Amino acid sequence: MKDPIVAKYLIETPHPLEFAAEMIAGEQSSGTFIAVPGETEELKARARARVAHIRPLEAVDTPGLPGSRPPKSLSGPPQYQRAEVTVEFPFDNIGPNLPTLLATICGNLYELAELSGIKLLDIKLPQAFAQRYPGPQFGIAGTRRLAGVQARPLIGTIVKPSVGLTPTQTADLVRTLGEAGIDFVKDDELQADSPHSPFPARVAAVMRVINELADRTGKKIMFAFNVTDDLEAMLRHHDTVVAAGGTCVMVSIHSIGLATLVEFRRRCQLPIHGHRNGWGLYGRHPLLGVEYPAWQKLWRLAGADHLHVNGLQNKFWEPDESVIRSIKACLTPMFRPDDTAMPVVSSGQWGGQAPETYRLTGTTDLLYIAGGGIMAHPQGPAAGLRGLVQAWEAAMQGIPLAEYATTHPELQATIAKFGKLRS
Amino acid sequence: MKDPIVAKYLIETPHPLEFAAEMIAGEQSSGTFIAVPGETEELKARARARVAHIRPLEAVDTPGLPGSRPPKSLSGPPQYQRAEVTVEFPFDNIGPNLPTLLATICGNLYELAELSGIKLLDIKLPQAFAQRYPGPQFGIAGTRRLAGVQARPLIGTIVKPSVGLTPTQTADLVRTLGEAGIDFVKDDELQADSPHSPFPARVAAVMRVINELADRTGKKIMFAFNVTDDLEAMLRHHDTVVAAGGTCVMVSIHSIGLATLVEFRRRCQLPIHGHRNGWGLYGRHPLLGVEYPAWQKLWRLAGADHLHVNGLQNKFWEPDESVIRSIKACLTPMFRPDDTAMPVVSSGQWGGQAPETYRLTGTTDLLYIAGGGIMAHPQGPAAGLRGLVQAWEAAMQGIPLAEYATTHPELQATIAKFGKLRS
Repeated sequence: MKDPIVAKYLIETPHPLEFAAEMIAGEQSSGTFIAVPGETEELKARARARVAHIRPLEAVDTPGLPGSRPPKSLSGPPQYQRAEVTVEFPFDNIGPNLPTLLATICGNLYELAELSGIKLLDIKLPQAFAQRYPGPQFGIAGTRRLAGVQARPLIGTIVKPSVGLTPTQTADLVRTLGEAGIDFVKDDELQADSPHSPFPARVAAVMRVINELADRTGKKIMFAFNVTDDLEAMLRHHDTVVAAGGTCVMVSIHSIGLATLVEFRRRCQLPIHGHRNGWGLYGRHPLLGVEYPAWQKLWRLAGADHLHVNGLQNKFWEPDESVIRSIKACLTPMFRPDDTAMPVVSSGQWGGQAPETYRLTGTTDLLYIAGGGIMAHPQGPAAGLRGLVQAWEAAMQGIPLAEYATTHPELQATIAKFGKLRS
Repeated sequence: MKDPIVAKYLIETPHPLEFAAEMIAGEQSSGTFIAVPGETEELKARARARVAHIRPLEAVDTPGLPGSRPPKSLSGPPQYQRAEVTVEFPFDNIGPNLPTLLATICGNLYELAELSGIKLLDIKLPQAFAQRYPGPQFGIAGTRRLAGVQARPLIGTIVKPSVGLTPTQTADLVRTLGEAGIDFVKDDELQADSPHSPFPARVAAVMRVINELADRTGKKIMFAFNVTDDLEAMLRHHDTVVAAGGTCVMVSIHSIGLATLVEFRRRCQLPIHGHRNGWGLYGRHPLLGVEYPAWQKLWRLAGADHLHVNGLQNKFWEPDESVIRSIKACLTPMFRPDDTAMPVVSSGQWGGQAPETYRLTGTTDLLYIAGGGIMAHPQGPAAGLRGLVQAWEAAMQGIPLAEYATTHPELQATIAKFGKLRS
């Protein structure tokens, strides 16, 4: 008996838990809404998904999602029972096929009227997936090697304004940041190949600066050029970056899709920076979608070397504990020790979150990105960058920021500006 | 001034509407959480998205989504104000790039703490998108031509059980259905290329039957083989279908992604049957995601010839008016009269919904799919199919089903079995 594909869900239902769990298993394997002649006992034994475990949780009066239908036999108002449900799907139903895996473990489940909530919490995949999908090509070690940074987080920024800068203006910004010693810069996800900033022109202008700086200082900035586009164009953009001596490409993973990332990874010679914009669709509602620990496994298998995880005290809605859990998920091996992805910490980061980020994760295997936090520093971007590096020095040495700032004026100015903003 | 990209949203916010709308426009164009030096007036004029219209709706006490942050200045409990907001994004920020369009009009918006709900309602795209993306290759006319069906819906079914049948068992089923005169059969989305039913073996077995029947009767069943997989494998599967004389391929669009569909469309010689499993993520919550009228435009541009729309009185959560609106959306031209997609009506369909479907849409440009509704008919699948065809005959002639059934025994048996189930 081959290992099954295991999926754990949080569900909410006005039906008995056993019934709802069997509905999930049936709908996503050999069942349909009514018995059909071909669903023999032999076929069921082979192909029907199995409910392995049900852990009842609390019951509530108000459904998480609209559209559920309580049992017709019910007399009083329905209660909506929550539970963790583990389902085992026979591997032979699917084979090692990531897109069809997604159609199976998510797919129609969100539509079931028997449920008032369903969120995929985690998955466990058989070894066959690792054989077909080699996972990150560069990962953390490869990224560190290319960026020339060890034993501390890579410090990066996003080109801001997100859109509207010309290639020359972008290159000028990279020069300022590069002269200040930045490790990593990325395009905004809104900026790909546009009339405002055609991709080849931007790569030419930016890489001229990066290569000049590298010749002069020995340090080559890793710039994640946003190649998000149709696949044909993505591959062309990739070749442009490689030819210019670039060391990273970025994709909006939800916009291109799982199958495109797999194909792109096969033909890619650079680390893939996976931007998760659109993640709120999966993550924001507590009873709809996919939790990050499950989701990042799919994208790592498909080939993402870096994956966004948001940041502590971010500008978005996500609570800190969720961000910490996401960082840890990216750093947990699946099939081999180095199939981890580098967590990309960003969103409203200015350095003040460095001590807490370090304390709660215990890792420096991070790409720590500040946009406005660097670019809007009162003494300019170079000072913004130095303030950020100083914040991480303090964090790693266990020195309170305010104390470290007394001897580090850029950090002092950082705290003066952003500390107030965020308190 | 080029035409902008126009996006209309339903939002909910504890902030003043103007503030929340500007936050959306800023976040998805040239702004970030703090003013940065590069966001000059000249750049803003060129690149900043514009709030074109705000239509206030009701206010509520309870937020639609968790994680929103009311203004700090607020003294009492927050009110959550809803509104329709129209935003215009400068075309030159993006260019005709579908994946980056998605990152712009959806992307980080779902994460904004200033919002307690945001759903993309509709989009209007400039002509340049039509130039880069030719849309459906076959559409309704091409599908009808290949299937040899005019002036009535194509009647189809799904291979059931969804998974577990061998290629030979699948082919046997197709023979039964083909001998009864079916127009269209599709793989289930759970069945792609699996150890239980390897793709080449299934195509060989099924097409042998379809080609034999076509030689005998002159009617070639359109079978939508589920090619969902990595792109390389999808193209291989496609070639297998073409070589065997098949006339349709199916993809799980959310599982492969927008960029893969674009690339696949460029290299595809057959109509693409777009299965929307996973749609619940976008559609189920009233204040999160994307409404179908907006969503189907993206997938049509990317190349889907058929798009699933659910069905009336379906087994899922979706209300009928939403299904009707989806059918109409697929049938509304975007850039040219024939860039419509054929709506695929399915889920719990058994024929009883035919009169209402016809009455509310006025169209026969439908692929009407019944799974259990055909396969579980008391007199077998062939009678199930005849009952279904009879239901559509009645619908199109405006004859009540019960009346038509008095002279059509298969429909009578259909109603006896499924009419009770559904009442």
